[in-house]
Amino acid sequence: MKQILIKNAYVVSMNEKREIYNNGSILIENDLIKAIGKVDEKSIIDTAEIIDAKGKIVLPGLINTHVHLSQQLGRGIADDVDLLTWLRERVWPYESNFDYESSLISSTACCVEMIKSGVTTFLEAGGQYVEAMAEAVKNTGIRAALSKSVMDEGIGLPTNWIKTADEEIQVQKELFDKYNNTADGRIKIWFGLRTIFNNSDDLIIKTKKIADELNTGIHMHIAEIAAENDYVKTNRGNSTVEHLHKLGALGPNLLAVHTVWLTDREIDLFRLYDVKVSHNPAAAMKVVLGFARIPEMLEKGLSVSIGTDGAPSNNRMDMMREMYLTSLIHKGRTLNPKVVPAEQVLEMATINGAKCALLEREIGSLEVGKKADLIILNPNTIHSLPLHDPIANIVYTMSSENVESTMCNGKWLMKNREILVLNESNLIEQVKIKSEEIKTKAKIVLPNRFPVIDII
Amino acid sequence: MKQILIKNAYVVSMNEKREIYNNGSILIENDLIKAIGKVDEKSIIDTAEIIDAKGKIVLPGLINTHVHLSQQLGRGIADDVDLLTWLRERVWPYESNFDYESSLISSTACCVEMIKSGVTTFLEAGGQYVEAMAEAVKNTGIRAALSKSVMDEGIGLPTNWIKTADEEIQVQKELFDKYNNTADGRIKIWFGLRTIFNNSDDLIIKTKKIADELNTGIHMHIAEIAAENDYVKTNRGNSTVEHLHKLGALGPNLLAVHTVWLTDREIDLFRLYDVKVSHNPAAAMKVVLGFARIPEMLEKGLSVSIGTDGAPSNNRMDMMREMYLTSLIHKGRTLNPKVVPAEQVLEMATINGAKCALLEREIGSLEVGKKADLIILNPNTIHSLPLHDPIANIVYTMSSENVESTMCNGKWLMKNREILVLNESNLIEQVKIKSEEIKTKAKIVLPNRFPVIDII
Repeated sequence: MKQILIKNAYVVSMNEKREIYNNGSILIENDLIKAIGKVDEKSIIDTAEIIDAKGKIVLPGLINTHVHLSQQLGRGIADDVDLLTWLRERVWPYESNFDYESSLISSTACCVEMIKSGVTTFLEAGGQYVEAMAEAVKNTGIRAALSKSVMDEGIGLPTNWIKTADEEIQVQKELFDKYNNTADGRIKIWFGLRTIFNNSDDLIIKTKKIADELNTGIHMHIAEIAAENDYVKTNRGNSTVEHLHKLGALGPNLLAVHTVWLTDREIDLFRLYDVKVSHNPAAAMKVVLGFARIPEMLEKGLSVSIGTDGAPSNNRMDMMREMYLTSLIHKGRTLNPKVVPAEQVLEMATINGAKCALLEREIGSLEVGKKADLIILNPNTIHSLPLHDPIANIVYTMSSENVESTMCNGKWLMKNREILVLNESNLIEQVKIKSEEIKTKAKIVLPNRFPVIDII
Repeated sequence: MKQILIKNAYVVSMNEKREIYNNGSILIENDLIKAIGKVDEKSIIDTAEIIDAKGKIVLPGLINTHVHLSQQLGRGIADDVDLLTWLRERVWPYESNFDYESSLISSTACCVEMIKSGVTTFLEAGGQYVEAMAEAVKNTGIRAALSKSVMDEGIGLPTNWIKTADEEIQVQKELFDKYNNTADGRIKIWFGLRTIFNNSDDLIIKTKKIADELNTGIHMHIAEIAAENDYVKTNRGNSTVEHLHKLGALGPNLLAVHTVWLTDREIDLFRLYDVKVSHNPAAAMKVVLGFARIPEMLEKGLSVSIGTDGAPSNNRMDMMREMYLTSLIHKGRTLNPKVVPAEQVLEMATINGAKCALLEREIGSLEVGKKADLIILNPNTIHSLPLHDPIANIVYTMSSENVESTMCNGKWLMKNREILVLNESNLIEQVKIKSEEIKTKAKIVLPNRFPVIDII
């Protein structure tokens, strides 16, 4: 039996009552939280690791509900370009030149960046090499729901990406059998639906059926750009959400990502079917999807969480930054300084994230019996003091620099900013080499923004 | 004579041609740049400090054109509240309880946060204790234009803040005589105009006259909130900018801050009179000023720069974060992913900042004869690699963590993330004590966002 005691901390539990334990403790036994608040001295064994967290904040690990692991090596290949250039000239050629090894490096780098910004669980948007993603998750100690990038139709796609609906379902079923609940239960396998542009009705219906049977989730980009609803109306008679409703695809195990262009009725449908939402504020602005109606969705009680999206859309996989953006953009859009306050942003990044991950009984808050997924924040830096309003400080002021330690499933992944699960310097070198290699293979040429003179 | 040679760097000069020297060097002699690009070995003296910056980026020091030093200790006192609560129940009571010592601690902390995020020059929005600000600037080695918070009328203000126009001019003239060009020329004294709500026509006219005579700048919040134009129209017959124009106050030495609510004609007036603009994207969203029409202003050739605003409005004095926000919000607002591209953001934060500071002949770019104000960025972190597009990476990906070293006036203020000009740990303790003291004195009570249970 392994025990870790964190004591004297400002413990933000995010439990049902949202209780904060000032000068509180948390006792971890193996992968679980054994006690919280006041811990009975007698329950602590001699070999327990004791961490004095005086002046620090303990928080549930953050949950990133939308990220593309395989885009990590493509950071910087598609900035300041329109969406078609982004997709067809940059990201698709890049991802087309991926193999198992590059996917593993890309995925590992992405996991490490997330761990360093306080993420303990993420939902993957769908990649080509799920095996490599699973390997990265296993190695880095993080928790994840992985899915395959699934496309059975679409214009302009790399041809070798398109499969039949039955092939896609079959491959995912095999991935589910092989990986679901592996790595001490940290890996879940979900079913992917890329977007309505790339998925047939047949595939959508079959995906819903099998996901329900296997009691797992479905990850899908929905109502992402204005043109999407126009396209679906023309080709299938209605908007994306209305069409999914007609197909019977709405349900509590559907994660709808971006959801920028929803009508009031569609928000009501989401509520009725308990559809989960992933809000990605950086990508919404940078790839100009638009401003999702998040205050309205929260007002109606939807489970809205936060995601970073992939590296070419953001460009950081940093949930601390994404929380800050979430708090800002809806105030700006609605001209109301009180909407989406700090405490609500923190709920989105923790307990709502757990609901979206279909894991609210296991993670998302610090409670006895839940998994020991947590982070320690150190507010004692010149950029984050004073600490007049701790919850607001986390959202408005702190950054990933303040994430001192990250624990997932009872195991330290990072401690005092040092990654413990692998050699970070080696990983950095691999990222440099492999990213250059793929850019060359994919023949991506980026124009210089300023004239470059080589000094010899 | 003191020399510093930085070699093997990716030197982003921001000179007229925006040349980048790949594998370039920069030779600093005392406070000036002596050579750049290729440096003649023979010109380097034996005692020169040599820095190998291989794999790193050298950039002109960033210029923060709007910040409130005395609000630094009030970070967190006014989050998620409306503007009147912000002003009257939080920030004014807080600042009213300031004295020289608290102003000095607040200003020093603010300067250090800026140095750690790559800022070498800032323009202060106007504080009560200019002497304390000058002391902080002198001690921390940074460059600044300081001004007094000037108010000769207004509703709801702390009464001891209001002076007559002549008193305000006289005090500022004395400050100018005492401090302008002190601290090796790093300190400039500007004239302050708080806002049109608090400044009489008499004061505005006299301020313009004396600033012109003394060849210095004027720092003013202009067209900050929608209600401002309505107020001025009712009380003085026209919008703020039109009214300033009528008073003859528009000119190249006027820095207009926020400028959210400008008409096309007002933008044209700014261009005609070469009025300088400070854009503050975080404050614009958080305190819901609105979205300034920055792409339109840049298109017309205005000198638009970037500012952080003060701690209760942002909440970070972090120009790296502010550059990122600047790049995002206008794309989101205009639904055009190509507006305000990374290279333009970098211009705003460097050379445009220098123009707004009225110091473009001395700072803002790395050129022979200019002041040695520069920063070294280290992109070799897991959160910023790969480096496919270096300029975009600076804006979209890096954060203050990547600012490795900061030099102002030829002197290292921070090296390898270590502040060299003072003891940072001591400062942190002073910030904690003093901020708590003032909050108590000002009787500011912040509601708990979640229930807090004290564990005994």
